[in-house]
Amino acid sequence: MLVVITGGTGGAKLIEGLAAEMDPAQLTVICNTGDDSVFHGLYVAPDIDTITYTLAGLNDGEKGWGIQGDTFTVLEQLRRLGNDAWFNLGDKDFATHITRTRLMAEGLTLSQVTERIRAALGVKATILPMSNERVETRVVTPEGEISFQEFFVKERWSRAVKAVHFAGAERCEPAPGVLNAIRQSTAVVIAPSNPITSIGPILAVSDIRKALRYSVVTVVGVSPIIGGAAISGPAHKLMAAQGLEPTAFGVADGYRDLLNRFVIDSEDRGLRGRIESLGIRVVETSIRMTSLSDKRRLAREVLALIEK
Amino acid sequence: MLVVITGGTGGAKLIEGLAAEMDPAQLTVICNTGDDSVFHGLYVAPDIDTITYTLAGLNDGEKGWGIQGDTFTVLEQLRRLGNDAWFNLGDKDFATHITRTRLMAEGLTLSQVTERIRAALGVKATILPMSNERVETRVVTPEGEISFQEFFVKERWSRAVKAVHFAGAERCEPAPGVLNAIRQSTAVVIAPSNPITSIGPILAVSDIRKALRYSVVTVVGVSPIIGGAAISGPAHKLMAAQGLEPTAFGVADGYRDLLNRFVIDSEDRGLRGRIESLGIRVVETSIRMTSLSDKRRLAREVLALIEK
Repeated sequence: MLVVITGGTGGAKLIEGLAAEMDPAQLTVICNTGDDSVFHGLYVAPDIDTITYTLAGLNDGEKGWGIQGDTFTVLEQLRRLGNDAWFNLGDKDFATHITRTRLMAEGLTLSQVTERIRAALGVKATILPMSNERVETRVVTPEGEISFQEFFVKERWSRAVKAVHFAGAERCEPAPGVLNAIRQSTAVVIAPSNPITSIGPILAVSDIRKALRYSVVTVVGVSPIIGGAAISGPAHKLMAAQGLEPTAFGVADGYRDLLNRFVIDSEDRGLRGRIESLGIRVVETSIRMTSLSDKRRLAREVLALIEK
Repeated sequence: MLVVITGGTGGAKLIEGLAAEMDPAQLTVICNTGDDSVFHGLYVAPDIDTITYTLAGLNDGEKGWGIQGDTFTVLEQLRRLGNDAWFNLGDKDFATHITRTRLMAEGLTLSQVTERIRAALGVKATILPMSNERVETRVVTPEGEISFQEFFVKERWSRAVKAVHFAGAERCEPAPGVLNAIRQSTAVVIAPSNPITSIGPILAVSDIRKALRYSVVTVVGVSPIIGGAAISGPAHKLMAAQGLEPTAFGVADGYRDLLNRFVIDSEDRGLRGRIESLGIRVVETSIRMTSLSDKRRLAREVLALIEK
C-alpha cells in the first residue's frame, strides 16, 4: 500500500504515472484541502477534484485543472447575472461542486462526499482529504491577508508575500483513514507539489506530520523545483516568504524531519551535497513531466526507490 | 399600470404579447411560487424563471420552459455522479438557480433575488413572487401525496388525483409590493394558466384573493381550456379532482368572485350563457397562441377590453 501526500497540478502528474505503473487499488492519496473555497455558494475542493479527475482519466492535462473539453456556459451566465466570477469553473466541474455542496448540506463529511464521487467516476485508488475540518491557507501581503485562491488565481500571484499561514490547521483532526493509511503503508511519497501551499497545509495538521515523522517506512520526496523556480506556480516565491531557500535544497530542508530519499532534477546536482548533509539520500533524474511517458518513467523510478 | 396574475407556460405566452403591445414598464407580473422546489440543493422557481426569461427574450418558446438553445452538460454530469436528475435544468438555467440559492443563503428574500435577476437580464416589467414564504402545491394521489413537480414532470401527470392543496398558503403574507400593485392597478388580468396549480396557489394567499375580490378595476380572465382539455398540461384533470367542471365554464366558476370579463375560445361559445349567468361578461375569440402574432393579437384584445 502506497500513500501519496499531494496538492493539485504537479502531484497529479506523478499520481497519473503511479496509477499506470502499479495497481491503483493499492494507492491512497491524501489531498490538501487548504485551497478549498466557496464560490457562488458551492464548496469547491480544487486539489481533491484535480486528483479525482486525473485518476478517472477526465483531467485537462493542458490546463492542469478541470475536466477535459469542459464548457463554461454556467460561468458565463453567472457573469451575465452580475456575479463576480474570477475563478474558472467548467460546466461538468459545476456538477461536482453542486453534488458535494448538497451532500455536505445533508450532513455528509468531505471524506464521504469524496468517496462517493470517486466511486461514481470509477476511480480505484483511495482519495482522502487531509481533514474534514476547514483549514484555510491565508497569504499575508503588505495590503492585507487574502485566501490562496485570491492570491493565486485572482491576482495571478503578483502580490508581494510576507508570510503564509494555515488557519484552523493546529486544532484540526486528520480525516478518518489518514493516519491508518500512513501506518499501514509500505512507503510514503511526498508529491512534487508546492511545499508551502499544497503540502504545507497537510503537514500543518500536527497528527499527520507526527505520523510521517515517526513512520518506519521509506518516505520519498520529489522536488517541484528546478534551479530557482517551481516547474509551475509560485512555490519559490512562497518559500522565500516562509524563510526557505527557493531551491530543491529548500524543499528538502522543509521536509528534513520526514524524508529518507529525495528526487531532484539532474540540473540540480550541485545541491546534492547540501541535501545529503540533512541526512537525506538524493536521487538525480529528469523530474519534468510533460508526456504520459515522462510521468510513468518518473513513477517507475520512485517505485524502484521504494522497492530497494 | 396593468397587473397580471400568472403561472408559467400559458401565462408567459400572453405576457409576451402584452409586453410587445404596451409599455412593459407599466406591467407588474405576480407569479406563482407553489411549484418552487429544491433540486440538487438549489432553489428553483420555475414560474418566476419562465416569466423572467420570456420578458428578457431568452425563453425557449418551443419547450415552454428554460432558455433558448441551452445545453445540458451540468445535468448529464450530475447523472453520471449518481444524482437522480429527472427535472430538466439547462446550463444557463443553472446559473439562475445557483445565483438565487447563494443570495437567499446570504439573507435576501425571493423578491429581492427576483428583482436582481430581472435587472441583470434587462427586463423592464416588474416581476413579483406571490409570497416570500414557502407555499408548496401538494397533489394527493391514491398512492400518497407528492409535490406538483413530481406529479407533473417526474410522473408526467399519469397518476390519479384525489385533491390538490397548497401547504403554507393560509398563513402566508403576500410579497412586498403585491397588494400595492393590485390596489394601484388600472386593471388585472388572470392569465391563461392552470387554474388549480398555477393561479390556485396565488389565490390561496388570502390577502391576494381578497384584494382581487374587492378591487374596483376590471378583472379579465383568459381561459386556458378549449373544449374539455387544457391547451397544454393537466389543468382539466386537476380541476375535476377539485370538483370544478373541466371546461372554460369551470375556470370561470372558480374565479366567479373575481372576474368581470372572461375570454374564451370561439369553439366554446356554447358555454357563454352559463358563464354569463355567473355575472361575468364573456368575450369569444381564438385563444390558442402559437406564433408571436397570435400572442400579440390576443394581448391587444385583452387590452381593448380593459380600455372599454
